[in-house]
Parts: sequence; C-alpha cells; structure tokens
Amino acid sequence: MSLRKRYAVAIVGATGAVGTEMLRLLEQRRFPVKSVRLLASSRSEGKRLRIDGRLCKVETLSRHSFHGIDLVLFSAGASRSLEFAPEAVKQGALVVDNSSAFRMDPTVPLVVPEVNAHTLRTHPGIIANPNCSTIILTVALKPLHDAAGLRRVGVATYQSVSGAGSKAMHQLWRESRAIARRWSHYQPSSVVRDVENCVQGPLSGNTILPQRIAYNLIPQIDVFLSEGDTKGYTKEEWKMREESRKILELPALRVSATCVRVPIYLAHSEAVSAEFERPILAEEARKRLRNAPGVRVIDDPTRGRYPMPIEAGGCDEVFVGRIRQDPDDPKTLHLWIVGDNLRKGAATNALQIAELFAKTNRFA
Amino acid sequence: MSLRKRYAVAIVGATGAVGTEMLRLLEQRRFPVKSVRLLASSRSEGKRLRIDGRLCKVETLSRHSFHGIDLVLFSAGASRSLEFAPEAVKQGALVVDNSSAFRMDPTVPLVVPEVNAHTLRTHPGIIANPNCSTIILTVALKPLHDAAGLRRVGVATYQSVSGAGSKAMHQLWRESRAIARRWSHYQPSSVVRDVENCVQGPLSGNTILPQRIAYNLIPQIDVFLSEGDTKGYTKEEWKMREESRKILELPALRVSATCVRVPIYLAHSEAVSAEFERPILAEEARKRLRNAPGVRVIDDPTRGRYPMPIEAGGCDEVFVGRIRQDPDDPKTLHLWIVGDNLRKGAATNALQIAELFAKTNRFA
Repeated sequence: MSLRKRYAVAIVGATGAVGTEMLRLLEQRRFPVKSVRLLASSRSEGKRLRIDGRLCKVETLSRHSFHGIDLVLFSAGASRSLEFAPEAVKQGALVVDNSSAFRMDPTVPLVVPEVNAHTLRTHPGIIANPNCSTIILTVALKPLHDAAGLRRVGVATYQSVSGAGSKAMHQLWRESRAIARRWSHYQPSSVVRDVENCVQGPLSGNTILPQRIAYNLIPQIDVFLSEGDTKGYTKEEWKMREESRKILELPALRVSATCVRVPIYLAHSEAVSAEFERPILAEEARKRLRNAPGVRVIDDPTRGRYPMPIEAGGCDEVFVGRIRQDPDDPKTLHLWIVGDNLRKGAATNALQIAELFAKTNRFA
Repeated sequence: MSLRKRYAVAIVGATGAVGTEMLRLLEQRRFPVKSVRLLASSRSEGKRLRIDGRLCKVETLSRHSFHGIDLVLFSAGASRSLEFAPEAVKQGALVVDNSSAFRMDPTVPLVVPEVNAHTLRTHPGIIANPNCSTIILTVALKPLHDAAGLRRVGVATYQSVSGAGSKAMHQLWRESRAIARRWSHYQPSSVVRDVENCVQGPLSGNTILPQRIAYNLIPQIDVFLSEGDTKGYTKEEWKMREESRKILELPALRVSATCVRVPIYLAHSEAVSAEFERPILAEEARKRLRNAPGVRVIDDPTRGRYPMPIEAGGCDEVFVGRIRQDPDDPKTLHLWIVGDNLRKGAATNALQIAELFAKTNRFA
C-alpha cells in the first residue's frame, strides 16, 4: 500500500484469537492506518494491546464506538455483529464481518478475494468474511472449477482448536499438561497399558469444546441441526455447503462435509474429493493451482513433500498437495488442503477485502 | 471357550504393540491355551513378558521355533511373515498373519469374522488378518451392503500412532514432552505468538514416522506408489481399496481413500461416504447396524453422543455414529467410524479367527 489516504480502523473482538491476528496483520501488511480503536466486551475493559510498539487501551464496545471510524473489522461472534454492525454502517463505516451473521443475506457479498472479488461492486456497507474452512476450500477449488466445471465436493476436515477461539487453545494446552503429568515415564514394555491408564477416558475440568480434545477427535464443530435435509449435520458442515455455493456462484453444487476437531493448535486441513463436468488430469490440476492466486502447491510426496499444519500455520497461502486421480473416475480428483485458519481463514481474508476498498478508495 | 482341547500358541513379534495386545487378549478372551511361546527378533532376546502372572522369556525367532506349535500369530512385518510363515505351516501349525505378506494371495483367506467367515473353509494353512483401517471399515459397511448393495466408498482416515508400532507411540510422547517444556506458561494475550514460537515448525530428534507428529498431521501412511492407477496413492490407501474388495467380495467396488496420521495414541477413525445401489434411509442404516455383530452404534449427536477415540480405545467393537443422508442423493450415506486399531484392527480380529478354528477343532 503506498496510497496517501489513511483510514481510522476499529477492531471488534480485539482480544480474541482472530482479533489479535488482525492487529498483527494490519502492521505486517502495512495497511494504511490512521488510527486503530480496540473494542471488546466489558470483560476486557482496561486491557492493553501493543500496536506499532505502543500499548493501546481496549475499550468496551457500545453503539457510540464507531464515531469517525472508516473501517470496522468484526470478530466477536454473530450476536455482536447483528447488534452493532448496522449501527457502524449508519455512522458511515464500512464493515467487514467475520461472523456468520450476514453471510447468507442475499444483499451482502460473501467474499474470498481470489474467488469472487467482483461481487464487492454492490453492498449494503457490510461485507461478510466466510467460514474459515470454506475460505480454504474455495481458494483451492476455484481454479479447478474454471478448468473443468465443478459438480460435486466431498470433504472431511481436520480443524485445529484455534478455530474455536483462544479458550479452546487453552483447553488443549491444559489437557496436554494434565496427561503429561500422569504419564511422565515411558516404559516400552507397558506402553499400551500406560496409554489406557493415563491417556484414554475422560479428564476432569471444564471444557469450552464439547468434549475433551487432547489425544482425541471430536466429530462435532458448532451445534447440530435437525430440520429437513440438515438433519444430522452440524452447522459448520452446513455452512461449508451453503457458503461454498454462494462464493463459487454454483447454487446447486453438491457439497457434503464431515467436520472434525483435531488436537492441534493452528491450521485447518481438508481431505477433498472433487467431481467435475469434464475429465481433468492431476498434472493439469497441479499446473492450474501453481498459477492460481493465494495457492502454494506442495506436491512431491515421494520426497515427503505435502502440506502439513506445522508448515502452513503462520502463512497466508492455502497449501495444496496429494493431488491425484480417482482410480475409477477420470472426472474426479482427490486433494489434501491445509491453511492457517486464523490468517487466510479469517484475518488475512478480511484485510484483503479491506485492501481492495483502500485501493479504489471506495470506503463509505 | 469351554472346550477340552487346548492349544500350543506362538506369538511372533511378541514385544511389539500388537504382540503385547495379543498376549493380553489370549488371557482376557480365555482362549484355550496349553502353552505360549514368545518370539521376536534377537534384539528382544532375554526380555520377559508377563503371562497369567508368570514372567516368560522372549525367544529369538528361527526356523526351529515352531516345533509342537498348533497356532502361530504373526505380527512382525511382512518380510518376517514371508520368511517364516511357510516354515510354520510345514511344521503343522495354523498361521494367522497380521502382516500384508499374504493378504492379496488368492489362495489365502483374508478374514473379518463378522463379514466373511465362510471363506475360511479352504486355506493353505495361512489366514491373513486385514489392514487395521480396512477391518474397521468393512465391519461397518457389511450390514449396509447387505441392505442396499454397496457401489462406491470414499473414506478419509484419522489414524493413531499406535498403528505404526510402539516406536511411533514413543515419538509422540517424546515430541509432546519437548513442546510442553518449551511452552510451560500460558499467557492468553500472546497465545498465537506462543503457538508460532513453541509449537509450529520442525523439532530436533529422530523420527520413526516420516515427519513430526505432535500437534501436526501427516498425510502419509506407508510408502507412496507410482505405477499406473496407484500413482499418488500411499500403500495404505491402496490396501484399503484392494482388501475391502476382497473381504466384501466386490471385486469392482469403487474405493478411494485418503489416509492421515493424527497425534493420538490409540484408535483409528474414519469419515466415510458410501453410495449404494438402492436408496437407504439413515434410520434403516442405524437399525441394521444396531443388529450387526461387532458394531456399537453411538448416534445421539444432539446429546453429544458420537464415537470418539478416547472411548473406543480398549474396546473390541467398531463404534459407528454420525449416520446421515447425503443432502443431494438418497443412495448415499455418511458415517463416522472409530475402532481400536490394536484390538479389532489387529489382535482381536486375529484371535477371533483362531477361535473359529478352536470351536470346530479344525487346527491342522
């Protein structure tokens, strides 16, 4: 960014996992900031966060928080966004909302810049940032859709605890420590017994996730739905379907997802099966993805090169690998996708949207 | 087992993760044992393992180990089985082999007792125990195949480190400890930074798995293949396809798998999409599975009841839940399956095979 104009920015949910990442990225991406206002619930009142080396106070979010603000980045849950985003718009700010509150509103653009930036042309002052898993998925699928016409997507996710916020990160840390204390000596002769005694079964203590997560898998993200077609799906799984359809502008796209929380801190991974209208070779897919914006192809498996959370965490690109043909169907490809859920899955994508506005100076 | 006849049993690979589990299960399941011989490589020479309260010496495996033995349970890798199983058969023993050595041999039955026990009728003295992920998958799919005719299976696995043996379990333990030491204090204000500094990136030290596993995912199990249709698949993924076809007696079944190692100690999980010849309702599938042998249905998601590794580990059944219709196709169901890879995925299944022989006294 080398433009003259600078913007007054507010971050709602500034103390959360995504909010702190937004704050760091405003600096790292050199967003043209005039001022930053940090907003959170009254529980964070008085906290201070570092911006450009200076400590700044966190203020309590209210209807009066948006005076003189050009851009508000919301990341404090759907109910906060529903209550305060319209107020921010009324006071003249552009809102980029990371919650699910407005995503399926037909007047609100739901934007992944690499995929559907053109939908930003008309908007009601609010732009919705998609679900983290959906952003990562659509960045990888768009170039393949352009090549061969996407017909059906099956996806199983491996989602890190940071997707459920900083309290879920603390849960994994606390539970890992409790198990490490129980199982402090490793005896090869009794390892399976030690696992059964020290690792398996319930742990005491409150959880923010619906179950214990350390050395476990939870096949539940968000709440379960029960009406009609949605029966048996979680809200996260249904979001991946509905949001992918809107972002890719394929309202009848067949999407089925299984969303699973895994005991890792950062980055979401996805095992994807994609069926196309026309046959597409793995080599063609690899070439398309190499030339696609926001994608890093890591696909040399015999040399141990494929996407992994420990490498993708902290990066802005979506990592794609394990690209291979279905053995029975030349129109189906399988892929393994990994992306940092706090960055491209949330903060990076929101800032990219704001940057598109800054470039054209179309704020308010 | 209340039969008179008792058997001389040998366990090859007695000190490994599966071998020690076999030893425990011989007791727990009251297999009619006359004597147990513990066999392993010369590295384990002199080690002692507890059987029925007595410590027994581990002997070095050789061509002379099988004299007077009725049943040999092999679990020491394919090359050991290839070398020694024919010798054991020649000396009059029945072999149940947990390695991949003979699984695709058309003369060797590949058996999951709940699925295809009838194929035990003729055999060359060797019975193959299938791959752990495949056993768990086929136990859950067989009753649904009987109901609606299986046509296509898509599966993404979440496999625990014990599937790669006790050294891989030690790797996860060691790496978890190293990270716990680096990140010993939890500060909510800098948690993402702490994750980046203490958790992400490579760890020093040797690994038995192809990559670091703590707080990571490895989309590689076994080696990568490169010939024809197998290109880009791992051997594990291809085994799931070929072995499922043989066990379910569906040689043209469409199966595609993505196999992923996850940082948990015990139990493998699988997100499965199954397409059938005829429509099948989730409720019908649930009823069929409730009545199926070896299956425990845990499927009351709104009350937080679904299969999880911390509950399935240590159990002999395959846990099935999250059973739901595909939103676009009445012939497709989605399921979440979890099973103890050392028990039903290996030792339990092998012993069940041996029990079928003991029941009919058809040993040698």
